[in-house]
Formats: sequence, C-alpha cells, structure tokens
Amino acid sequence: MELSFIRLIDYIGTFAFAISGLRMAAIKHYDWFGAFVVGLVTAVGGGTLRDLFLGQTPFWMTDGSYLVCTGLAFLFAVVFRKQLFEFNNTFFVFDTIGLGLFVVVGFQKTVDAGYSQWLAIIMGTITGAAGGVIRDVLLAQVPLIFRKEIYALACVVGGLVYWLCNIIGFGGVISPTAAALSVILTRFIAMKYNIGLPLLTKYEDKSEE
Amino acid sequence: MELSFIRLIDYIGTFAFAISGLRMAAIKHYDWFGAFVVGLVTAVGGGTLRDLFLGQTPFWMTDGSYLVCTGLAFLFAVVFRKQLFEFNNTFFVFDTIGLGLFVVVGFQKTVDAGYSQWLAIIMGTITGAAGGVIRDVLLAQVPLIFRKEIYALACVVGGLVYWLCNIIGFGGVISPTAAALSVILTRFIAMKYNIGLPLLTKYEDKSEE
Amino acid sequence: MELSFIRLIDYIGTFAFAISGLRMAAIKHYDWFGAFVVGLVTAVGGGTLRDLFLGQTPFWMTDGSYLVCTGLAFLFAVVFRKQLFEFNNTFFVFDTIGLGLFVVVGFQKTVDAGYSQWLAIIMGTITGAAGGVIRDVLLAQVPLIFRKEIYALACVVGGLVYWLCNIIGFGGVISPTAAALSVILTRFIAMKYNIGLPLLTKYEDKSEE
Repeated sequence: MELSFIRLIDYIGTFAFAISGLRMAAIKHYDWFGAFVVGLVTAVGGGTLRDLFLGQTPFWMTDGSYLVCTGLAFLFAVVFRKQLFEFNNTFFVFDTIGLGLFVVVGFQKTVDAGYSQWLAIIMGTITGAAGGVIRDVLLAQVPLIFRKEIYALACVVGGLVYWLCNIIGFGGVISPTAAALSVILTRFIAMKYNIGLPLLTKYEDKSEE
Repeated sequence: MELSFIRLIDYIGTFAFAISGLRMAAIKHYDWFGAFVVGLVTAVGGGTLRDLFLGQTPFWMTDGSYLVCTGLAFLFAVVFRKQLFEFNNTFFVFDTIGLGLFVVVGFQKTVDAGYSQWLAIIMGTITGAAGGVIRDVLLAQVPLIFRKEIYALACVVGGLVYWLCNIIGFGGVISPTAAALSVILTRFIAMKYNIGLPLLTKYEDKSEE
Repeated sequence: MELSFIRLIDYIGTFAFAISGLRMAAIKHYDWFGAFVVGLVTAVGGGTLRDLFLGQTPFWMTDGSYLVCTGLAFLFAVVFRKQLFEFNNTFFVFDTIGLGLFVVVGFQKTVDAGYSQWLAIIMGTITGAAGGVIRDVLLAQVPLIFRKEIYALACVVGGLVYWLCNIIGFGGVISPTAAALSVILTRFIAMKYNIGLPLLTKYEDKSEE
C-alpha cells in the first residue's frame, strides 16, 4: 500500500521530468525520435548516472515501466501539443514532487550500497538534477540549473535534512519524508519569492549585466 | 571464415563511422588530435556506452584493432583531404552496412548478458546511434539524428526484426542477418524517398518554419 | 613522507584544475552552484571517466578531500574575484604540474588493474585531459583542447615516456618521475614557442582562415 504510493509518485515524477524534456525538444523542433530520447534522458538520466557511479545496473534496464512512463509522456506531448505549453503551474508542482522523491531515492540507494552520508547527499542531488543537465547538453545549450533558480540547491538541502534526521536518530518514514518535503518547500519558496543564488561575477562585471 | 567476415564488416563500419567524425571535425577546423578524438568517439562511443550500461569492460580496451582502425581513418583523412568530402555515396554505403552490424552486435551482447529483448533493442540502437550523438556533443552542435533523416529509427526497426525472428524461432544466422538487412534497407529506403519523422511542433508552429 | 608529497601535488593539481573551471564559469555568468559544479567536474571528471572505464569506483566517492579541495578553490574564486583572472602564469604552472601527476596516476592505475600499457597511455591522457572536455561540454562550447595548444598531446608524450621507461626496465620512482616531467616539459615548451598541431583542413581551406 505504502510502497505503491511511492511508486505512484515515482511515475508522476518520471512523467513530469519527461514532459520537461519534451517541451524543450519541441521548442528546438526535434523530430519524434529525438524528442522521445530527450524526454527519456531527462527522466532517467540522473538516476542512470548515479547507478553507474555506484557500480549498479541502471534502474530502468530491469524495469520497463520507466520507458512506458516516458512513452505516455511522449504520446501526451504529441496529442496535446498546445496544452504542452500551458498548465505550467501543474507541471511545476508534479516536477517538484518528483524531484523530492528522486532525491530521497538517490540518498537511500547510496547509503544502502554502503557509502557515506555526504556522498548520499551528492548522489541524491545527481539523481534529481543531472537529468536536466544531460537534457541541456543534448540540446546544445547551457544547462539551465547553472544559471537559473534554486533547483539543484533544493536537492542539497533535502540531502542535508536527511542526514540531520539520521544523526538525530529518526528512523523509518520520518527521515525520507522530511527530506522530500524540504526539497519541495525549498523550491516552492525560492520560486515564490524569486530567490536565486548570486552569480560568480555579479559585482565585478557590472557593465555586462 | 564466417567470423572473419563479420570482423571485416566490423572494421569497415568502424572506419566509416570514424570518417564521419573526422569530416565533421574538419568542417569545424579541429586540430589533428581533436579530429582523431572525434573520429574515435564516433566509432566506439555507442559500443562504449552500451558496455558501461551492461557493466562490462568497453570492447576497445582489450582489443587494440579498433584504435588502429580509427588511426587508419585518420591517416586517410589527412592524406586524402579533398576526397574526404567526395565519395559521399560510398561512405554512406559503408556507414550503413556498419550500422546494421553494430545494431546486431549490441542486441546479441545484451541478450548474452541475460537481459530482456526489449532492452536488447535499446542497446542495439545505442550501439548504432549513440556514437554520432557524442560526436555532436563534442562539436557543440545539436545532435543530427534528432532532427534529420531516419537513422536511429532504422536501428529500432532492426532490433524489432531481431526480436520477431527470435519469437518465431529462427536460430543461428537468420535472425541477425535479417536484423542487419532491415537496418540497412530501412535507411536506404528512407534516404532514397527522403522519408523523415514528423517534428514535434510541425503543425503548431507554422510561422517559424 | 614521499607519499604525502605526491598527495600535496595531487591537491595542488585538483585546486588548479578547479580554478580553471571556475574561471570559465565566471566568464559565462554561472551562479555559485553551477560554478562549483563546473569546477568540480573539471577537477575530477577525467579521473571519474577513467575509473568508470576501468570498472572501479570513482576515486572521489571514497575520499572527500577532493571535494574539500574544490570547495577551497570555490571560496578562493568568490573571495578573490579579481585575482581569479590575474596570476595566469602561476595558475598555468600549477595546472601543468597537476597535469603531469594526473597522467602518471592514470597510467599506473590502469597497469595495476591488469590492462596493457597502450591502454595505460590512453587512460593517462583521459585522466589529464577529459575533465577539461567535460567542462567545455557543460559550458556548451567547443572543447578548447581540440583547437588550441598542446595539451592532450603532452599527456600522450608522458604516457609514451612511461612506457619506454618500463620497457628499458627503470623501476620504482624513475619511470613515473620521467613521465610527469615530460608532460610538464612538453607543455612548457609548446607554450613558450607557441607550438600547436596542424588543423585538419589547414591547407585545403585557405579562404576561411
């Protein structure tokens, strides 16, 4: 029961991540195959990189449902072309909920594999944020998360909260739930109040900005 | 005898793939080292990604002949600079024959490693098409196969044919031969009749095209 | 004693590589997180790719000091924004010393893992040069080392010297020292006399250059 709830969120997140890739591919006029690949890579790229680093088989290779999920997102994008660029807020909510779960999954998998918790924070962040980076590389554009909004940092915050909960001694469901919620909250707050990180050359290079 | 025939096709494919990378590198005025790397990555990149996903040692690490093959393609590109941009049809034929073989090799290796056949279709496609994607990433340009012609889709068709042959029960040489031929045929037909996939936003975005 | 000397060079090299990434990120106006990631990837990317190819756990995953080293480089870049673009010669020296060591480490790790020496040359080159390539991919620009100066080739020279020393039968400290020094010397000489590799289309394409 609880497990299938997590699975549902996982699929929702995969779907929302794939949609984000498909939108970008549509803007760049990719063909159907290219768009599908960009959607798939956005959805599973972060977890794939994490699994390669951990020396494990990428998760989607033994479970076809992630491919099906991306396929459904692709069909949605083809059939509802117009709606693909509406409902921004709805997609944002799904995307953020998925992000929270992805970070938690990445954190847990790393700890389960016997690595340290500081590495789990990094792997949680990679799980959540690397898919979007690979998407942008395939679109030949500067990765969005390196210049805009709090995204990857929300993953780091979630990982830190997970770590803290583990240190305090929260077990079972509390640590991952708190971690996922802090990812989601951080991103929502950052979006609402338009909070971003400073740029590296902000104060030096006034002429250009 | 038969094995050395396959090996010959493998080397021809590697050579043709490397040439395709070297041509692009020459257009972008890369230096000799950069051009060699782009040629090498185009030739072995797809199989390398496949092997990393399968948890195996990349195939070129234990068999130097693929490096030699790329080296010969590089020498060819340096000595016959002009011819590098002629004989398009010849290169196209070699490239397509190589593609057919690469798809079959990727499919077989995946099944041999104990994975499912739907994954074998994906791995066959990655073996055939991912090298060109990595090449384009290293050239900082949008991957060609995401916007032009039937290329990766021909790999998928080949994989589906392999699968179908296996379901029907064809053994031995028939399944891989049929798969390779369908890759080659699909690409030839698509090229001859200029068939391409629809773009994701084709009908929505008339103003821009 | 000797080991801690190597470790010191390793950290200096990591710091210098990270600085090179941070400078590029600053030029492109990345935010703090993006700049840190680009710095980190530049510093550890080459060794990570090598370890994935060798089927080993990426070295920074079990030793947090490389992350700390990049963190220090990041703090330096934030606090000394102006100085980041001065001291070019100092950074160049550190960067080159680090490069020499990285090549040697990559070579040794590959031989220790039971692979051939020609592969060790490639892995040494990947260790030294691939981080900069991944950095440029993340910055959506053509990899610098494919168009400018002798950089990767210095790694190849170092690997060849290592190989030669091993053939001759030099043991212990001599082979790696000679290899590292030849990397450093090659790069210094190439820089001083402005030596570069020919471009692939130099003589054909006079109109464009």
